Amino acid sequence: MSVLKLGLPAGSLQEATADLFRKAGYKITFPSRSYYPAIDDPELHCTLIRAQEMGRYVADGSLDCGLTGHDWIVESGAHVTELAELVFSKVSRRPVKWVLAVPNDSDIHGPKDLQGKRIATEVVNITKSWLAGHGVSAQVEFSWGATEVKPPKFADAIVEVTETGNSLRANNLRIVDTLLTSTTRFVANPQAALDPWKRQKMDDLLLMLRGAMAAEGKVGLMMNVRKPDLAHVLNKLPALKNPTISPLADQEWVAVNTIIDEDTVRHIIPQLKAAGASGIVEYPLTKIID
Amino acid sequence: MSVLKLGLPAGSLQEATADLFRKAGYKITFPSRSYYPAIDDPELHCTLIRAQEMGRYVADGSLDCGLTGHDWIVESGAHVTELAELVFSKVSRRPVKWVLAVPNDSDIHGPKDLQGKRIATEVVNITKSWLAGHGVSAQVEFSWGATEVKPPKFADAIVEVTETGNSLRANNLRIVDTLLTSTTRFVANPQAALDPWKRQKMDDLLLMLRGAMAAEGKVGLMMNVRKPDLAHVLNKLPALKNPTISPLADQEWVAVNTIIDEDTVRHIIPQLKAAGASGIVEYPLTKIID
Amino acid sequence: MSVLKLGLPAGSLQEATADLFRKAGYKITFPSRSYYPAIDDPELHCTLIRAQEMGRYVADGSLDCGLTGHDWIVESGAHVTELAELVFSKVSRRPVKWVLAVPNDSDIHGPKDLQGKRIATEVVNITKSWLAGHGVSAQVEFSWGATEVKPPKFADAIVEVTETGNSLRANNLRIVDTLLTSTTRFVANPQAALDPWKRQKMDDLLLMLRGAMAAEGKVGLMMNVRKPDLAHVLNKLPALKNPTISPLADQEWVAVNTIIDEDTVRHIIPQLKAAGASGIVEYPLTKIID
Amino acid sequence: MSVLKLGLPAGSLQEATADLFRKAGYKITFPSRSYYPAIDDPELHCTLIRAQEMGRYVADGSLDCGLTGHDWIVESGAHVTELAELVFSKVSRRPVKWVLAVPNDSDIHGPKDLQGKRIATEVVNITKSWLAGHGVSAQVEFSWGATEVKPPKFADAIVEVTETGNSLRANNLRIVDTLLTSTTRFVANPQAALDPWKRQKMDDLLLMLRGAMAAEGKVGLMMNVRKPDLAHVLNKLPALKNPTISPLADQEWVAVNTIIDEDTVRHIIPQLKAAGASGIVEYPLTKIID
Amino acid sequence: MSVLKLGLPAGSLQEATADLFRKAGYKITFPSRSYYPAIDDPELHCTLIRAQEMGRYVADGSLDCGLTGHDWIVESGAHVTELAELVFSKVSRRPVKWVLAVPNDSDIHGPKDLQGKRIATEVVNITKSWLAGHGVSAQVEFSWGATEVKPPKFADAIVEVTETGNSLRANNLRIVDTLLTSTTRFVANPQAALDPWKRQKMDDLLLMLRGAMAAEGKVGLMMNVRKPDLAHVLNKLPALKNPTISPLADQEWVAVNTIIDEDTVRHIIPQLKAAGASGIVEYPLTKIID
Amino acid sequence: MSVLKLGLPAGSLQEATADLFRKAGYKITFPSRSYYPAIDDPELHCTLIRAQEMGRYVADGSLDCGLTGHDWIVESGAHVTELAELVFSKVSRRPVKWVLAVPNDSDIHGPKDLQGKRIATEVVNITKSWLAGHGVSAQVEFSWGATEVKPPKFADAIVEVTETGNSLRANNLRIVDTLLTSTTRFVANPQAALDPWKRQKMDDLLLMLRGAMAAEGKVGLMMNVRKPDLAHVLNKLPALKNPTISPLADQEWVAVNTIIDEDTVRHIIPQLKAAGASGIVEYPLTKIID
Repeated sequence: MSVLKLGLPAGSLQEATADLFRKAGYKITFPSRSYYPAIDDPELHCTLIRAQEMGRYVADGSLDCGLTGHDWIVESGAHVTELAELVFSKVSRRPVKWVLAVPNDSDIHGPKDLQGKRIATEVVNITKSWLAGHGVSAQVEFSWGATEVKPPKFADAIVEVTETGNSLRANNLRIVDTLLTSTTRFVANPQAALDPWKRQKMDDLLLMLRGAMAAEGKVGLMMNVRKPDLAHVLNKLPALKNPTISPLADQEWVAVNTIIDEDTVRHIIPQLKAAGASGIVEYPLTKIID
Repeated sequence: MSVLKLGLPAGSLQEATADLFRKAGYKITFPSRSYYPAIDDPELHCTLIRAQEMGRYVADGSLDCGLTGHDWIVESGAHVTELAELVFSKVSRRPVKWVLAVPNDSDIHGPKDLQGKRIATEVVNITKSWLAGHGVSAQVEFSWGATEVKPPKFADAIVEVTETGNSLRANNLRIVDTLLTSTTRFVANPQAALDPWKRQKMDDLLLMLRGAMAAEGKVGLMMNVRKPDLAHVLNKLPALKNPTISPLADQEWVAVNTIIDEDTVRHIIPQLKAAGASGIVEYPLTKIID
Repeated sequence: MSVLKLGLPAGSLQEATADLFRKAGYKITFPSRSYYPAIDDPELHCTLIRAQEMGRYVADGSLDCGLTGHDWIVESGAHVTELAELVFSKVSRRPVKWVLAVPNDSDIHGPKDLQGKRIATEVVNITKSWLAGHGVSAQVEFSWGATEVKPPKFADAIVEVTETGNSLRANNLRIVDTLLTSTTRFVANPQAALDPWKRQKMDDLLLMLRGAMAAEGKVGLMMNVRKPDLAHVLNKLPALKNPTISPLADQEWVAVNTIIDEDTVRHIIPQLKAAGASGIVEYPLTKIID
Repeated sequence: MSVLKLGLPAGSLQEATADLFRKAGYKITFPSRSYYPAIDDPELHCTLIRAQEMGRYVADGSLDCGLTGHDWIVESGAHVTELAELVFSKVSRRPVKWVLAVPNDSDIHGPKDLQGKRIATEVVNITKSWLAGHGVSAQVEFSWGATEVKPPKFADAIVEVTETGNSLRANNLRIVDTLLTSTTRFVANPQAALDPWKRQKMDDLLLMLRGAMAAEGKVGLMMNVRKPDLAHVLNKLPALKNPTISPLADQEWVAVNTIIDEDTVRHIIPQLKAAGASGIVEYPLTKIID
Repeated sequence: MSVLKLGLPAGSLQEATADLFRKAGYKITFPSRSYYPAIDDPELHCTLIRAQEMGRYVADGSLDCGLTGHDWIVESGAHVTELAELVFSKVSRRPVKWVLAVPNDSDIHGPKDLQGKRIATEVVNITKSWLAGHGVSAQVEFSWGATEVKPPKFADAIVEVTETGNSLRANNLRIVDTLLTSTTRFVANPQAALDPWKRQKMDDLLLMLRGAMAAEGKVGLMMNVRKPDLAHVLNKLPALKNPTISPLADQEWVAVNTIIDEDTVRHIIPQLKAAGASGIVEYPLTKIID
Repeated sequence: MSVLKLGLPAGSLQEATADLFRKAGYKITFPSRSYYPAIDDPELHCTLIRAQEMGRYVADGSLDCGLTGHDWIVESGAHVTELAELVFSKVSRRPVKWVLAVPNDSDIHGPKDLQGKRIATEVVNITKSWLAGHGVSAQVEFSWGATEVKPPKFADAIVEVTETGNSLRANNLRIVDTLLTSTTRFVANPQAALDPWKRQKMDDLLLMLRGAMAAEGKVGLMMNVRKPDLAHVLNKLPALKNPTISPLADQEWVAVNTIIDEDTVRHIIPQLKAAGASGIVEYPLTKIID
């Protein structure tokens, strides 16, 4: 039997990844102390790998494909084929940014001011490449963690990841510049991407993952509408969605069924009701494949 | 941008309130140690306030509106406009009652027996006003908590809140009379209620809150019915609900879709099946706006 | 008012049983330290009883009916009427097996090798009856627990329950034979099963329990299909399910609504899409009564 | 190397036993899912065994010795040699009692009233033997647990273990008679008790266990006393203890050092101070061997 | 038997109080849901009472004595006899202060600036009395909690309790003045304090509580010293402590035993060693009565 | 005021380090989300730093001194002065080892077999230097974690830290060689070690840390002995300890006070008792400075 070797990111994204897979219809369980999660598809073999190392092992064929951040692909310089961008995050759906940050009262206000300074970071290669692009020479030190508490005693500046900037602000740091914006990617080994069976397997998997992601934050809405009010009601629904309109036994009425963004529900429902919709019911969805 | 200042009750109702708002489509999060919950609507500004103080701050305009108990509005004597009654509670949906309770073996059997006695309570004003209505004079002491353990050593009687009476019984207390029945209310500052923008904002919010509350304890039911059985099947459904009947490709059959109370499902389904319904499917709902 | 006395299994199955009842529409709560769970149906009176004793108390009429394992009915030799087999389990849906197990390096390879040996087990009667069937005489000792750690020091062999065999393997034990396969059963006192009111009550309860079990692991799928593609799309759906096909306002299209196994979704959706289905939406179900 | 096979009671006494051993100077750790606790003495090999089965396995030589309750030795009828009584218990130091209990409103007031009744108990043999002693014939049923909730529906009376009687009272049961009083015993296989090496090993172990138990609830007290006050101070100390009196550099004073019960400290210290003791210091102890 | 009715403060000080009593030799346990803690002295009867109400109930004789803060005695205006000040606190041993605090950018810089302002506080009487002392008239509102988040929207200033000022600073508040400094007090009903039996019982209890508090933060130190070095070593010990010097069998040496503050140990030990002390051993203490 | 900048290892050793400091008399607390632990000595300023980076920051003077593993000092190549070896560990007191490990069935049996292989490790420099010493060339890859699960798919061999070898065995790995044995060290910046005030401060701190470590696993033992038995009793005590012998009021007896290893107590006490010691009491210690 053919098997697709799939790398899943260990650590902070692990549970969110498993949730996404579960919504997509794949049951993943993490046996304690094992790095080989069980999955209910015998054609998939999963391995938990640090996001930092995913590029390396997909590139050398130890894995056929994997999920990891765009940042770590760039940092590792790994040669992999990107098949999809996946936006999911427990805390938010915003992409993360790697920024140059300095103490609030620092004299550093741009790349040029870094000449000869000490910079602590987990992404040494991204930082060095960015400095080279600005023609600046500085001492870039690998940071094993807690980077944001290092300035000013242990570093003059840092390059650190942030989503909201809260942690930087809490440490009295000021953002000077953004080096890289990053989201989660599904990457494949270039040869695996050319193998027909593996590629079909990856495409089916991505179809389901996208279907699950599309359903997050969406809800179903059904309502009954008198035919004279139909145009008015449809006018209130988001233009790009194509609602299903079905006849009812009572021929004066039709049923309208549609999918809308959960966070627009509260704006649209008052308008639908005003436009003549009745018996409006919102129901949950688990997958949407257009 | 206009902003509506909304007070949410801190403490035991806090999580239940946030759940209700989430079901209504508003994401509320409580930053640790902050009394300003985040909400994903920039036109709303939330503040956590003790239920006891909500009336005072809505009345003086520090807040435009808020959720609190009818009891604390009465106790504080605050001048506010009540816009809606909201019935939600983690433990039960029954309203709470403020009752006069005494030890099982007490000689007190009615208001008149309280003359000259010590009464401990958190609602000093409600109690005094009730005593005055009965022409009785007694010593009413503010209780900082654990009121139900005070009789007979620290008080002769108490006025205490209860839902089921369990806690009173467990402390060997007997209910003599009910002073007030209370549910949660949505109250507004009288001037804010006259401001067109604020009033529309509050009405839309209430429409969504009511839609979410209506869906709690309700489920959707869909089934296929042969046309000759339709009248029989419809006869088994609760009279006041208007089911949606839609044609099917197979013209001998119709589809019936309706909303019923979750706790009647187990009585109705056996009857529907006996009346000829087939393929009965129950599905969950998140909002109902009639 | 008539009351049906229902026994629920205390211990490891307790929460799973309550979950099943909740999905079936019955709210069960466990007051702390009480063996009489509350249920929101005044015609049912529940008692928590150890699975091992359920047969005894249903047989002698202390209870009208109850849920317990087939194994304990056999072990107790109780005279009860089995009304239904219920397959539910938190960990898996596989039935449990009582097996004869010995140390990996034991000389015991079949029933005959047990002559004169010490066997530790919780099911002394099942074991003795099985030994007698093989004409073997051995010393069967009741084990109060931790049976799987007894060989070889405290027993030569054990008869122990297992679902996956993992615990036996972890204790270096080898399965020699299977004595009994067991699932959960709904059993009734023979006279209660003949009482019309009690029997109707039990049948309605079983209808709802089966409806809830049928919905576990199933999802609803709805999609729009152009009429020319309909045969092709229907061809991809599992044969035995009869999808609901309903007309749409746009007469070139029909809506298809069906129920499928959750773990086949990921195989079927890519095929449906390829066959021409559009706007495929998956939604959750809570009960299915065919 | 010689090894002593020691059984430790699994379950409710397990942690209390390990605590006692730790205080006695033996470090016991419980590897998860193993029934062979690790101990830092290579001459001891520990096994966790249910208290109910300890007698059986010590009697047949599977174990050399073990700790278990007197009740389970009697119930199992095992032939073992009792070497010591050990009184330790997390909740209290009172021995447990097995009592006959009936509903408060039962007609049963003595053994004779049990004729023909149903009795549920975990100690079937003790109960049958006691009934036989009273010339009474009743139906004794083995109870798998929750025995105290069985009367009156599932049994007329129970024989159940109790320390304080609280649980019986909470279930509206009344104690009719006491069948057996039980404490923890250290029992040995009769032949192991005659083996010189094993006996010496057991005696040394018991010396340390007793030293640790003696120190529980005891404290050290030291104080300085002027010689003229010495007789007066000594007079206040418990008679049976022999305090250490040592000279000080200042020849008018002596130091007194003694061991007293922790719960008498609060009565004795005020008296010692009044009698002239100064600089009274209480310090903790971990072992006392007289 | 005579009984002393003792009030213990419910809430944040409850566990710290019980710890202190346990160290003093009294075992207190809190039965769940009961306000009557069990204590192993039949002559004491304990009741948990809010610190705010302790004064009221000690003053009216419902209790003979109790522990509460000086602040709440002042606030309640209760007539009680103070027998002792007890300094114990989980977090720190510093007394708490009630301070007037305002937003950092407020115009209020002293009592006079409060004229006509809104002040929120839990100590309405203390605040009003302090304002009167400064001849200032302001609106003092009772705050049910979360007082520190009220300025500037819900109050212009607050009177709030603080130990370190951290919580005030975190809410951007500035301390303007201190109204009251408070520690825990042992207070008695004036008549109970004159009753000989009750007074003796309270004095004995206070002796033990003080002994336990004296031992907190103290350790015992013993060492051997050659006689010629003795003066030098003693010179390094805190002057006010009187060490016990005892002869040894080896007449060139003496043993020195003393009690010192735990947080001076690290300064003194290096000096003792330099002065010739050897075999220095530190050991723990549980009670000290001088 | 002079201040000593002290680095403490963040992460797995953090709590153990704080425990050791607390036993030595320094109260360390970790404010949440801060990397600057509070300590009750104003002359010490603590910073939490990853063990891997401690050498770097002590060498460049960002810190005066710090605690870290010998392994990370070697890996970083930092120029620091080692002042003491500190042996403390929650799990054990054994030093850790960095070992070369390969799959059980690997062909690699010595350094020479590594030629051209992939080695994953967190200590890239130690590994490269060791390979160079053996004249072997291999591909050494930095491992971000979970190194022990990498062979054979992601590496041919690993260099990993181990205390007991359990984790390696659980991953079916075999130890081929040991590269480095490591314990915790107290290291100083070379210039700080020459500064008189800083050096004295470090020496005093080390004296207290050593005193606390010496007391771990030791207990005090005191007993009374008749003079004729004294030689016999002393003979049973460990030779290297010098017990304190003091006279008693009863001149036939002396008191003996000594310190012994906790894990020898159970062997020595039976012998002391046999030799004539009476009233043997064991008591706990917190610090020993010889």
